[in-house]
Parts: sequence; structure tokens; C-alpha cells
Amino acid sequence: MNTEDLLNQIAFIKEIDKVKYIQRKTKLFNSDRNENDAEHSWHLALMAIVLAEHSNEPIDVLKVVKMVLIHDIVEIDAGDIFLYDVQINHDNTEQERLAANRIFGLLPKKQADEMIAIWEEFETGETNEAKFAKSMDRLEPLLQNTSNNGGTWKEFGVPYKKVYEKKSVIKEGSATLWNYAEGLINESVEKGILKKE
Amino acid sequence: MNTEDLLNQIAFIKEIDKVKYIQRKTKLFNSDRNENDAEHSWHLALMAIVLAEHSNEPIDVLKVVKMVLIHDIVEIDAGDIFLYDVQINHDNTEQERLAANRIFGLLPKKQADEMIAIWEEFETGETNEAKFAKSMDRLEPLLQNTSNNGGTWKEFGVPYKKVYEKKSVIKEGSATLWNYAEGLINESVEKGILKKE
Repeated sequence: MNTEDLLNQIAFIKEIDKVKYIQRKTKLFNSDRNENDAEHSWHLALMAIVLAEHSNEPIDVLKVVKMVLIHDIVEIDAGDIFLYDVQINHDNTEQERLAANRIFGLLPKKQADEMIAIWEEFETGETNEAKFAKSMDRLEPLLQNTSNNGGTWKEFGVPYKKVYEKKSVIKEGSATLWNYAEGLINESVEKGILKKE
Repeated sequence: MNTEDLLNQIAFIKEIDKVKYIQRKTKLFNSDRNENDAEHSWHLALMAIVLAEHSNEPIDVLKVVKMVLIHDIVEIDAGDIFLYDVQINHDNTEQERLAANRIFGLLPKKQADEMIAIWEEFETGETNEAKFAKSMDRLEPLLQNTSNNGGTWKEFGVPYKKVYEKKSVIKEGSATLWNYAEGLINESVEKGILKKE
């Protein structure tokens, strides 16, 4: 056993504790308390395990789980960007790429390369695993907002069209889950917790 | 697709949100803030992925990850029991068994059975996967307490002997990690953050 490798792994394990301090805009279910990135990632991992059968295509569940567990680690350096932010595009900012190199780079080289590749695969969103992982990432806050009487949609005045557009990514991972999600979005408009215009 | 199955899966996903409110005795790294069960489970899952190579025996990593992600869900009904509690034995209380049946029982039958079986396998601690999962569960708070100047050991006056005994479970999963952990425990005594008697 290479002691240096183990010490590098421990350094990574300690560093990622910071994910627990990164607050998301979204609140917990039926709650006023903001969710943090570690809680969010844990929830997505269990959602992926429980909902895997609904994937459009066969998926490597362990890879999806790795993706969702690590997808927000870059926010330690780059911060959380709200899905409906109109100033900043969330995808693949240079800052996130630097963060990935620094944080995953704490691991032994082979593991660092694997983690960066998995993170990039998630961000690019083209493989079956990345598509399903992204479905989870879009579905969780949808469930939270509907359970919170509109949640961030109401708080930040996000209209139906924007929600529908962002959430339709779910379809790429799972037509079944999108069918369910679409129902929730339409129901939210009917209930008046999501504004049509 | 069976709509009822999906609705049952969603009910489970909503129910487990409560794990985010269950506070552990242990604090985050270099911190005064208590960790909650969701954050803890997320951290263990990533530790299992990163440290898997140190397992004494070959392991199914996805199974270990499932174990650590779900191992504390029963605490929604049964509450968190401190590892060094002298009144209550943590292992397999009747209350935890009832909780497992109720909460995993929200899932479609086949998934419920699988989750209960995985949870029982973890609790029994006899398979390679359960042994390695338990190593993770013991290692994380050790890392936290050493980074917190004694943490819960100091706060609750836990002596070296008790820590050594409880932590030696790590050995069953990984001799390498136990070697590292033993070093941390001895170092803690030398530093005066863990009392010898």
C-alpha cells in the first residue's frame, strides 16, 4: 500500500466536507429551511437507485450514483448558481473547471482523472448515465417546489414557460418521469402556485 | 409502467427528506455545527468509493454505497443513538426493525424487500460489503473528532479504551485503514485530546 495515496484520499475526504455549507436556493420538503449541496446529492443518489428502472436506456447505476454524489463538489470554489439565474449560465464555467482540477486533483492521479472525467460526462450530458443523472437533478427541486406551495418559483417569480423549458431535460433521461413531472407542472399552474405568464 | 409503483417510489423519496433533520452528536470538520444523517450518509458514500481499494476483500461497491446511503433512514422513527451511549445498545433494536418495515415498506414490494435486506445485511455486519460499510461509518467521526480537538470524545468524556474498542471494527473491513486509524487514536492520546483513562 502506498501511504501517500491514502493521505491524499484523506485530504480529499476532508476537503469535500465544505459541500455541507453550500446552500441551495431550494427548500427542503414542506419546509422553510434551505437545502445544502451534501443533502441534495445524497437525495439524488437514492432517487437514482430507486428510480433507475424508469431510465429510457439501460444505465450503469453506480456511475449515475457517482455523478450525482460529486456533481456539486466544484461549488466549493465556484459557488451555487440558481437554475433560473438570468446573468450567469451554469454550464461549464471556467471557474468550475478550475475547481474540478483543484479539488479532484487532491486524489491520487488515477482517481483524480476518473472523477474529473465523470464530472465532465455529467456536465456534457450526452451519455445515458449523464442524462438520467440530470433527470434526478431536475426532478428533486420540482418535487420540493410543489410541496412548498410554489417554493423558489414563487419566491423568484419564475414563470411556467421557463420551468417547463428547464424541466423538460427530464425527458432525455426518462419519458416516464417526464410524464409525471409534466403533470405536476400543469397541476401547479391550475393551483396558482406557478404563474402562466 | 405501473403508475402505482412510481407513486410509491415518490412517497418514499419524500419521506426520506426527514433524514436531513436528524442531528448526530458529531460535528463537521473543524466546526461547531452538528452533522445531520443525510450529510453523514453522503460523506460515507463518497468515502466508500474513494477508499474501496483498501478493503480486505473484494467488494461490490454499489452495494456498499447503497448500505451507507440508507443505513440511517430508520432513525426517522427510531432516532440517533450515540455510539458511546451506555444505556441503549444501538444494534438491531425492535424500534429500528419496525422503522425499516414502515419506511422501506413505502416502496413497491420488490424494492422494499431489497432495501430491508441490505439494511439487515449492514446491521448484521458479516459480509465483506457490510464490514467495509461499517469501517466507513466508524472512520468518518474519527476523522471529525481528531480535526475538532477531541470533539465528542472530549464533550462526553469518552476514554481511549472505549474509542479503541469501538473503532477496531474498522479492521474487519480494512487492515490498511485500521492501521491509519490506530495511528490517529494514539496520536490523539499524545496530543491530550483523548484521555488515556
